[in-house]
Order: sequence, then structure tokens, then C-alpha cells
Amino acid sequence: MSKTAKINGLIAATFTPFHEDGTVNTSIIPEYAERLKAGGVAGAFVNGSSGEGVLLSNDERKLLAEAWAPYSDENFRIIVHVGSTSVAIAKELAAHAAALPGIDAIASMAPNFFPSSEVPVIADYCQQVAGSAPQLPFYYYHLPAATGTYIKVHELLQYAGHAIPNLAGVKYTHVDFMDMHQCLQLDGGRFDVLHGHDEILINGLVLGVKGAIGTTFNFIPQVYHRLMEAYHANDLDSARSYQMKSIEIVSIMLRYVNAIVGGKAIMKLTGIDCGPCRTPLRNLDAAAFGLLEQQLSEAGFFELLANPN
Amino acid sequence: MSKTAKINGLIAATFTPFHEDGTVNTSIIPEYAERLKAGGVAGAFVNGSSGEGVLLSNDERKLLAEAWAPYSDENFRIIVHVGSTSVAIAKELAAHAAALPGIDAIASMAPNFFPSSEVPVIADYCQQVAGSAPQLPFYYYHLPAATGTYIKVHELLQYAGHAIPNLAGVKYTHVDFMDMHQCLQLDGGRFDVLHGHDEILINGLVLGVKGAIGTTFNFIPQVYHRLMEAYHANDLDSARSYQMKSIEIVSIMLRYVNAIVGGKAIMKLTGIDCGPCRTPLRNLDAAAFGLLEQQLSEAGFFELLANPN
Amino acid sequence: MSKTAKINGLIAATFTPFHEDGTVNTSIIPEYAERLKAGGVAGAFVNGSSGEGVLLSNDERKLLAEAWAPYSDENFRIIVHVGSTSVAIAKELAAHAAALPGIDAIASMAPNFFPSSEVPVIADYCQQVAGSAPQLPFYYYHLPAATGTYIKVHELLQYAGHAIPNLAGVKYTHVDFMDMHQCLQLDGGRFDVLHGHDEILINGLVLGVKGAIGTTFNFIPQVYHRLMEAYHANDLDSARSYQMKSIEIVSIMLRYVNAIVGGKAIMKLTGIDCGPCRTPLRNLDAAAFGLLEQQLSEAGFFELLANPN
Amino acid sequence: MSKTAKINGLIAATFTPFHEDGTVNTSIIPEYAERLKAGGVAGAFVNGSSGEGVLLSNDERKLLAEAWAPYSDENFRIIVHVGSTSVAIAKELAAHAAALPGIDAIASMAPNFFPSSEVPVIADYCQQVAGSAPQLPFYYYHLPAATGTYIKVHELLQYAGHAIPNLAGVKYTHVDFMDMHQCLQLDGGRFDVLHGHDEILINGLVLGVKGAIGTTFNFIPQVYHRLMEAYHANDLDSARSYQMKSIEIVSIMLRYVNAIVGGKAIMKLTGIDCGPCRTPLRNLDAAAFGLLEQQLSEAGFFELLANPN
Repeated sequence: MSKTAKINGLIAATFTPFHEDGTVNTSIIPEYAERLKAGGVAGAFVNGSSGEGVLLSNDERKLLAEAWAPYSDENFRIIVHVGSTSVAIAKELAAHAAALPGIDAIASMAPNFFPSSEVPVIADYCQQVAGSAPQLPFYYYHLPAATGTYIKVHELLQYAGHAIPNLAGVKYTHVDFMDMHQCLQLDGGRFDVLHGHDEILINGLVLGVKGAIGTTFNFIPQVYHRLMEAYHANDLDSARSYQMKSIEIVSIMLRYVNAIVGGKAIMKLTGIDCGPCRTPLRNLDAAAFGLLEQQLSEAGFFELLANPN
Repeated sequence: MSKTAKINGLIAATFTPFHEDGTVNTSIIPEYAERLKAGGVAGAFVNGSSGEGVLLSNDERKLLAEAWAPYSDENFRIIVHVGSTSVAIAKELAAHAAALPGIDAIASMAPNFFPSSEVPVIADYCQQVAGSAPQLPFYYYHLPAATGTYIKVHELLQYAGHAIPNLAGVKYTHVDFMDMHQCLQLDGGRFDVLHGHDEILINGLVLGVKGAIGTTFNFIPQVYHRLMEAYHANDLDSARSYQMKSIEIVSIMLRYVNAIVGGKAIMKLTGIDCGPCRTPLRNLDAAAFGLLEQQLSEAGFFELLANPN
Repeated sequence: MSKTAKINGLIAATFTPFHEDGTVNTSIIPEYAERLKAGGVAGAFVNGSSGEGVLLSNDERKLLAEAWAPYSDENFRIIVHVGSTSVAIAKELAAHAAALPGIDAIASMAPNFFPSSEVPVIADYCQQVAGSAPQLPFYYYHLPAATGTYIKVHELLQYAGHAIPNLAGVKYTHVDFMDMHQCLQLDGGRFDVLHGHDEILINGLVLGVKGAIGTTFNFIPQVYHRLMEAYHANDLDSARSYQMKSIEIVSIMLRYVNAIVGGKAIMKLTGIDCGPCRTPLRNLDAAAFGLLEQQLSEAGFFELLANPN
Repeated sequence: MSKTAKINGLIAATFTPFHEDGTVNTSIIPEYAERLKAGGVAGAFVNGSSGEGVLLSNDERKLLAEAWAPYSDENFRIIVHVGSTSVAIAKELAAHAAALPGIDAIASMAPNFFPSSEVPVIADYCQQVAGSAPQLPFYYYHLPAATGTYIKVHELLQYAGHAIPNLAGVKYTHVDFMDMHQCLQLDGGRFDVLHGHDEILINGLVLGVKGAIGTTFNFIPQVYHRLMEAYHANDLDSARSYQMKSIEIVSIMLRYVNAIVGGKAIMKLTGIDCGPCRTPLRNLDAAAFGLLEQQLSEAGFFELLANPN
């Protein structure tokens, strides 16, 4: 498989492991990578929002890219998120990724201070970042709820498609399915559109989506593999049923602060302890953690874990 | 077909016709109803947001309900929107609709002053309104972008399902497909979930949606009929292609202030002149109107009109 | 004092009394009006947001205007709020007020469905409403947090100053002191700018504000009278101290849902029982009510009540 | 004057000078500092939002702190903003400032990714940052419009007042005057509250504000000096008149994208060319720049410049 081909399958939005003292703990990553590969996951998205990327120092972000890079192989891609409020920092991180054997692509969200929803402004930012890693595919990470950049992504792809030769597509974490549809249809389907909301994956599949990046792919990728199989076999009742199982787990996760705090706590319950979250994320106390475990248990989460394929 | 059965097909979110002096013009409604029926549309949604319902006086709203009621038949339902900032007004309009032969259902959005996102509060409002027309199916009209009521609708349906015996379902005009999916799956599919965003209808179909209420069904229902046929024949390429045609027309419409101002102008171009919009909606000048016509022409809109079936 | 002169002093944003069954209870109004006059309050604002105006039927709004009108006198003005999502309803209520002896002025907020922040659109709405009561002063009620109309009011006053001869000024319930300053300075101070946030009255006084409309003027007008006296005597320490007392009471009030629910409960504690709030406002249970009473007691509220002058 | 005393007077929120190629240009800073001192300005706020702080690399931020530090003297304080989405970066910058002779204080806004409005979370962030520069006064920079952190600052000061010994106060760039008043009155006036919106300075003075940090203090500090003098002489008509002059200039500035883009362009017109802004800020074209100059000229801006004292 060429690494410039579109992504087919599930990319895990990885968590950043911390020691209890708050420093980055890369010692867990070998086991983490093995787990993902064993579950048929197609790659790791590193230093994204699930990975608390913008809460890290630049050195920490580089360290994580370096720790994941060795696990790249023909069935497993490593995509590094390099976005920052500072285009200068994003460029530095892009250049670092480009120099690192094993990194398959980079991604960047829009800078979230002075948020702009002007396509030429965002295109300029992307061009500077993508241009710092010209040999790697570049994905625009569309996350308007966090960045405040409410552009129509198909307009960005159209506007910047020529100026950014390595513009590969978009990680689409938003609910504007009209725009997502337009992205998918643009230029005969030139761009790779990666679905970013696990709980509504089926709504992207009907538009032709082939790949996805998500948090719950860290623990229960099999639910989504089965969903996609059923969908492609035109067994919609089953596909909807798997999506409802995903909704059940996501709903529980989101009750615990947000997808990162809740997700990291779930990760610990699956046997890989990624440690605490960093300020301004806050951590669950023991009572909340116990309740989470109980609710997951009632939802059949641990049976799912026992049947990963 | 029983009028309490779920709705299958397309309901037009009708415009309110005005004379040039701003008074309601019911003289157009016979032709309007004929047009919709000839196009295979399954009903009319009266006094909704496309109908400028909350911009009307109570008497005007009653007049419009009365003008549409005679067109109810076994293939064409009349649903009257009765929502108001004042539950007292909503109840009065509900009772009026209930007393009017031909009205098949009522709907109400949440009161949009002092917006509440507490399910019991919205349930209380709905119970009072639905209770004023107990023999008619009641639909909750979910339009959070206008009302500010960001509840999870499946929680409302679950909470109020017993207390409101005539709670039939929801007109779902929002992009929370996770919640929409949960509404559809609730209680073995008890509730009728009517899709409210024309440009992403396909994203609802994949969840099992059967009916929809929309503005562009006033002019080009055939695009959506074909979309649904192709979808159900598992011809997804065609279904997506029809959805893209819908997106093209909707995109043009939305450039002209909003779906009501733009939509009413398009309606005029189709030969049914619904007159101006009421304050605080503003009307297009001649230059804008000409540009709209040109853009529609370039999009093949008039060829579509010439081939309504 | 001419009723077209600017307002000097405090206008109470009155609550609408309801019976326990939810119907309007005008029997309390004589006592209510006496209380306000005894406290040196300069008038009553009827059917505003504190009065749950847009939650009432049109007939109920007229009934309240009629119940308050007899209490107009040379030291006490009755201002009726007539705003509605429907300009047709607002015009009807304006005409009713105009025909009612005793009504001294009308006010209207912007229509809060399809919110517009275009000055000509809001001016058109105001012109239609003000034109239905041409012999009464008209106040624009600026409440963007509820209406979504984020215009600069000084631009509206400037734009509409000629077209609306009875445009008297603005009830300014927002925190844009730059705009408020510009309103006050416009045309040599032609317009009456009534301060709308009790807890920051002093911030308006420094700009030259002379009148205010507020919820806590229903119970503790003396705090504000003393504040204004101290301010005008250039005793800023005392003025700030009275403002801090106001902040203390307002802070407690706002803990109980909002200024209407909390305010109406406080009103009951002062001996005038205005009954429950209407849906979608919800009412305090006994425990919350008891806590409110205790917190007010600790803040010295009841000593204030015992010393009204 | 002790550098731990409260700030009395005006601190300029400085712009970061760039060369045309986008690199930082410190060569202008000597002249810039002289200008500010000649105008009676009491200090420089470095790397704040006007300074495009979070658009810079960490090294650039350190370079600017180093370039300004030498201009600290008994009448001129240097305050360095160290805030970042990453507490790790903020701590690094705080420690750098602490080690730099001449830096008089640091400030930090809340991290603006995963925005939190929980006081303990923000207190924890502040404690980590302030603790990295324990010998310097620490100011919380309240800028909720950019950070999304809508806490009540007086609650933060109260909560963290003991845990953060060097917590000096707040740069208050928001319109919640109730909260600002509570900050000023807290603990007998322990905390230093620096006003952050030039155009409404008078609304802070009435609460007892003594110091301010602002963008237009870069060019026309004399307007504010006169305003404060008139205010303290109880000549309110004059004070309001100076505030209206400030409003006029600020209104023009804000027409040109925002206070940074417009402000930097005005700075160039005053003879100190700070170069372009960095992505995602965009720069004015020649036509816009010419219009800005013309509007400033009509507003008497250049006469003001000619009379700086």
C-alpha cells in the first residue's frame, strides 16, 4: 500500500501517556502500538486533541512523534498533528516530523487564537505548515468547536488545492454533512476525507467515507469494523445496531468531563494506563472512576474487550 | 392510510403568501396546494418558520390553518405549527386547529424567550400544548438554532412519552445525528422522526428516516423522490448525485438572506408569487432577484421545473 | 413634570402577578403600586421581561396595561412594553396602550425570532410599532442577550431619529458602555437613556445617566436612591458601598434560576405575593425558597426592608 | 516607588515589531520605549494579545522580553505575558522572565484550548505559572472573549489569594463591571485591578481603578492622562469629552480588522513602523491604509500627536 494512497479503515486518536508526576511516559507506547495493530487499527494520530497536543511543550511533542515513528509499517500509518496558535511552532514541528523516518503524514488544525473563518487566511496558514514538510501528505484538521474556524472545508480544498501540492485531505470533526459531502465529491474525489465523530460514522459512510480517526478506536475498534462490514454488505439493521453500541459507549465516556478525560480513564480500564491529564483538563476522583467502570460494565463493554475481533 | 400512521414522503414547509401591502393572501393557496399534490408531495406544514408563523398575528395564523385545511386528503396531510413564546397563545392555536376539520396534526417548537434546555421544562410546555388538541398527533419541532433549546430529543420523547399520549414524534431540524439515531431506535421505533434539513436528507435515510419536512420540497420534490428511490434501490452513486443537486440549489437559496427570503423569491420564479416577507425579514431588490434567477438558471433549476416527475 | 420630559429616578420593572392556577391576578396591583410610590419609585415598567410579557396572551397584556394605567400620576409613569416576535401583535398592543388614559410611554424590544443586527431592519420594526402610538414616547428596549439583536443603539437612534418623531430613547440592558456613552452624547443629549442593570448603575451614572429601570427597584429602591445621592454629592466611597450592597442582593437573586424566578420569590418575602412564574420559567421548591430567605437574611435584606426611606 | 506597589497610570500594550520578512525586529524597541516614556506612560506590557504573543515561537517571546527589559526603571515597568495553551510553555517563559533583570511582573491569560470556567482549574494553572517566577508579581489576564474562560475573577482572587503568594491582581479586559467592582473591594482592596478597555476607562475610574493597560496608550496617552485628571478634579463634562475622543479613535481603529491590525497600522502613521502582522492576522492593503489615515486625520488624530503633553 502506498502511503500517499487514501486511508482505508480506522486511525486511533491516541492519548499521550503521562507519569504520575505529569511528565511524558513513552515507555507505554510499544504495548499501545501492539494493541492497536492487534485490533486491526490502521494507524495512530499523534499529538491531536485526544493526545493533549497543544498542552505539551514543543520538545514533548517531538518526543512523542519519535516514540511512535518506529511503529509505522505498511498497514499502520503514523500521522502527527503539528497545529499551534503559533505558525512558527507549527512549522518547526512539521519540519521535525518530515525529518523523522516513519512519519507518514502530518495534520494541523487552524490556529485557535484570533480565530479566522476566512478561507484565504486559513489557506495561508496551511501552506506555511504543509510547506515545511513538503514530502509528507498534509491533512487539514477541521475542529471548529475548538478552533472557532467555521469555514466550509470544500472551499479551502478548492482554494488551496493547487498552491499546496501535498494537501491530501481533511480530518473532519464537525457535523456539517453538506460540506463533508462537497469535500468528498470535489475534483472527482481527489481528497481524502477522514471521519472524525465515532458516534455518527454511519452518516459519513453513506456519503462514501472510507477512513476515520477517532478516540474510541483505541478500545473497541471491532465495533466499527463490524459496522463497516455490515454497511458494505447492505445489512443496515446490523450496521445501525453497531452504531447504537458505539453511541452507548461514547455517551458514557462523555459524562466524564470530555472525551479525553473520560477516554483516558477508559483506557486505564482496558489495561493500558496513560496516567493523568494535564491542566486545564482535570482528572476523575476515585468515586467517578468507579461509576464509570460500573456503567461500562452494564453496557457490556468488558465483554466487547474480551472479543476484540 | 391512517392519519395517525407515520409519515412517508415529503411534507412541504409552506410559505405564507402576502399581498404587496403586507396582509395575508389566501387566494393563492388553492393553486399552491394543487402544485404540491401534482408533485407527489405528501402534505403541507403550515405556519412554521418557512411560513413566518411567529411573525403573524394569532388571527392570521388561524386564517392560514383554515385556508389549508380543505386540502387535506388521504394522500396529503395538513400539519399546523402552533408554537409561540407564550404557551397561552400556543394552546389557543392548538385548540383552534383541533376544532378544524382537515387538520391532521399539530407541531410546536420550544418557546424561544427564556430558552430552556431542561427536558422537564420543555415536556411541561409540550404537554400543555398537546393537551389542547388531544385528538391530534403532536410533533415536537426541534429547531435549536432558532429557539436556543439544545435538549437531546430522545430524552424528551422518553420523558414525555407516557404523559403526552398524542406525542407522535419530532420534526428534527438540527445536525445531532447521534440524537436523531437514538430517537429512531427508541421504544422499538415508536416515534416518527421527520428529517428537517433537505441538503442532508441522505444522512437521515441511512438511519431509517422515512419522512421529511423541507423548504425546497415546495419547488423540486422530484429531486428528493429520485434520491429516495435510488437510495432504497441501493444505488448510492445516484442517490449522492441527487443530494448534490439539492445541495447546489440550497446553496444558491441561502445566499439570498436565508431560506425564507431566498425560498420565497424562488417560489415566485416557479410561478407562484407569495409576495414579500414580513419584518424583520427583508426582501431582495431587483438586482439580487435577477442574480438569483441567473444562478438558478446556470444550475439547471428551470430544466428541473420542466420535468417535475 | 411633563410626561415627555426625560425620566429622572427609578422605574420598577414590575412582575406580573398570577393566581396559583396560572391566570393573571390583577387584584394585587393597587397594593403593589402603593408600595412603589411609597418607596419613591418614579414609575412602573409593565409587561417587560421581568413581567413575563412575551409569555402572556395578547388579552392578558392588555389587561395588565389597563390595571396599571390608573396609577399614573405626575410623579409616577406607566410604561408598557409591547414587543413581540410579531410586529402585527406589537402594533396591536401599541394601539391599545395609546388609547388607554394613563399610559405614559411604550417600549419594545427587537423581535427575537430571525434576529437581525441590521440597523435599518430594526428601525423599520420600531417605526411600525411607534407609529401605532404616535402620541406616546417610544423607547427601544435594548436586551441583546435575549433578542440576539446586537446593534449599536446610538446608530439606531441616529438612523431613526427623524423617521420616528416619538423616539424618546432607550432602555439599555446591556454592557456596551461605549455605545451607551455614544447614545448619551448624541445630538446634544436629545435621547433619554435608561439604565437597565441595577448592579452596575454607578457605571452609568458616571456617563450622565439620570434614570433607570430595574427589577430590584421593586424591593429596595432606597439603596439606589442613596447611591445616587452619594454619587451626586461626590461621596464615591459611599456610592460604591451602596452599589456593593446592591451587588450582594442581586447575586443572591440570580442564584435562583434568574432575575424573574428569584425576583418573584423575593417579592413574596417582602409581603406581596405575585404567585408562580409561567412556563418555560420554573418555580422554586420549598427548600430553595427557604435557602433564599436565609441568604437574604444574612445579607441584611430584611433590615433594609424595615428602613425604606 | 516599589515595584510591588500597585500600578498607577497607563501601561502600553505593545506591538511586536516584525521585519517585512516576518522575523522579529527588535531594533525599533529603543525608540519605541523612548516614545512611551516621553509620553508619560508607566510601562510596557510585552507579548500580550496586542503583541501577538501566542503567535510567536518561544524563542521569539524570550527575545522580546530581553529587548524590553533594559528599559525598566523606577517610572517604567516591564510586564511580560507568558500565557500559552501549554502550561509547560507558560512555565518555561515565566522562569525565563524571572531570571531576567528588569522584568517587573508577569501575566498570563487562561489556556484557550479546552477552555474551562471552573475557578479551581484556572487557579491550578495560575499557581503553576506564578510558581515558576515566585519573586515577581503575577497578574491574571482576564480576556474571556479570546480564551473562553468566563469565570468571575473575584472568585479566582479569593480562591487563590493564599495559595499564590505573588498573585498581584488582574488585567481586566472584559465588561463585567459587577465582577470588577467585587475584585476592587475584595480584602480591603488588596488586589491591583488594571483596566483593559481604553474606550470605557471612565467606567472603571468610578469604581476606583488607578491603572490601565491598553493599545491606544501607544499613540495617544495624553487623552487618557487628561481624562484621569479631569475625572479626579470632578470635572465630569471634560472627562466624558476626553473619553468620547478616545471612543472616536478606537472606533476608527476597530474598523480595520481588529485592534492589532488597525493598531499596528496607526503605529506606523505615528512614525514607528512595527511592520506586518503574522498569520492568521492579515494586513491592510494600500487602499485601506489610505482610508485609515484619512479617517484619523478627520478625527484630529494628527493634531493630538503634535500635542503629546
